[in-house]
Amino acid sequence: MSNGTLILMRHGESEWNASNQFTGWVDVALTEKGEAEALRAGELLIEHDVLPDILYTSLLRRAIQTAQIALDKADRHWIPVTRDWRLNERHYGKLQGLNKAEIKEEFGDEQFMLWRRSYDTPPPPIDPTAEYSQTDDARYADLAEVPLTECLKDVVERMVPYFTETIAADIRAGKTVLIAAHGNSLRALVKYLDGISDEDIAGLNIPTGNPLRYDLDDDLKPLNPGGTYLDPEAAAAGAAAVAAQGQK
Amino acid sequence: MSNGTLILMRHGESEWNASNQFTGWVDVALTEKGEAEALRAGELLIEHDVLPDILYTSLLRRAIQTAQIALDKADRHWIPVTRDWRLNERHYGKLQGLNKAEIKEEFGDEQFMLWRRSYDTPPPPIDPTAEYSQTDDARYADLAEVPLTECLKDVVERMVPYFTETIAADIRAGKTVLIAAHGNSLRALVKYLDGISDEDIAGLNIPTGNPLRYDLDDDLKPLNPGGTYLDPEAAAAGAAAVAAQGQK
Repeated sequence: MSNGTLILMRHGESEWNASNQFTGWVDVALTEKGEAEALRAGELLIEHDVLPDILYTSLLRRAIQTAQIALDKADRHWIPVTRDWRLNERHYGKLQGLNKAEIKEEFGDEQFMLWRRSYDTPPPPIDPTAEYSQTDDARYADLAEVPLTECLKDVVERMVPYFTETIAADIRAGKTVLIAAHGNSLRALVKYLDGISDEDIAGLNIPTGNPLRYDLDDDLKPLNPGGTYLDPEAAAAGAAAVAAQGQK
Repeated sequence: MSNGTLILMRHGESEWNASNQFTGWVDVALTEKGEAEALRAGELLIEHDVLPDILYTSLLRRAIQTAQIALDKADRHWIPVTRDWRLNERHYGKLQGLNKAEIKEEFGDEQFMLWRRSYDTPPPPIDPTAEYSQTDDARYADLAEVPLTECLKDVVERMVPYFTETIAADIRAGKTVLIAAHGNSLRALVKYLDGISDEDIAGLNIPTGNPLRYDLDDDLKPLNPGGTYLDPEAAAAGAAAVAAQGQK
């Protein structure tokens, strides 16, 4: 029995997606292309008649803006919203702010892919006093410890309990829940939903600004394993583009 | 003793402010000028170092957008937000969508000012099936009864209990609370805060996009009666412009 619908939305292109820099917890804005992707996501919600009842976002501007633009387009700007750091992108440690192509050049293909796609090897920690550290950011004042780096396993360990203990209640109540978040926090959630192994998750990429719908049963098991992209053609092209990052 | 700070922000110019139409619960967007006012409001929050910890908005796009733009500017886009219909503009009944100058022409100065500024005389109710009625709007599905018209007294009766029973807890907890709302829902609140009589409230106008700060004691009494506009010069000019509406 389906109780509720989950819609996962990765933010549109950000300034640092465009400039090919590792972003992580750095709070960059959307580009014009990213805003257009968010608008298109809103159109897809209308076209497929999946209108969110409630929104969850990270604490990062690019996810918040994507949700605002998409929901305004779909005339659902007024729904309740909850923001939580557990939906944030993976903290990229010392790599935050650095150019992906340069990192690849300096450290080689193998190390580059290990940092990007290894399940349990985090990048080196960022210096807490560095420009792109979030140690003194007011929005994380309530955290016992602000991360200095994270691997995907770390993201799974914060994202999945937040999903099962908080977000899942809205799904079980029959609501249509929109999560506006990031490449790696959504990969962490999809890993859980589809039961993907630690190895296989490396090969999964989530495209930007294309809502991914899951219909879930009472046990939060997908009735449509792998989910359903509202724009399947764009999803295939988008996933290929994400996989190619750092090749430039 | 001051425990917390309250910041009232009336939305920037909307499409129907610009076209001189009664708006009420009709969900129109900001104009470019309105967006610029919201940006300026965000700059004022920075300049005066009053950074909101929590946001309350109405369910209407013009207030939601104003808050988003101002908070993004002030780098506070990530704070918790609660939206509630009790912060909505006054429902203008049958006048919603009609041109203010035409109404004045048709019904005369006295009736026009009675509908705009009388404390307890609502305009005639809107036909529930009319284009600008909100009877079937999904966002009000939980209301026992969607209003068909309201006078300022009706707004006081929904806005003030929401303030004292819900928002006040955050103020007493020492937070800086931002309320992004509307000319009449904010007039209703200011009437309560400053103890303004049913007669005198008619003369009070609140300008757009200029944050109004109140420092409140434990009993929610203002330490600065009348509040403090973050941009006092613009406030004086703005209030005069509001008072002149319908004179065009």
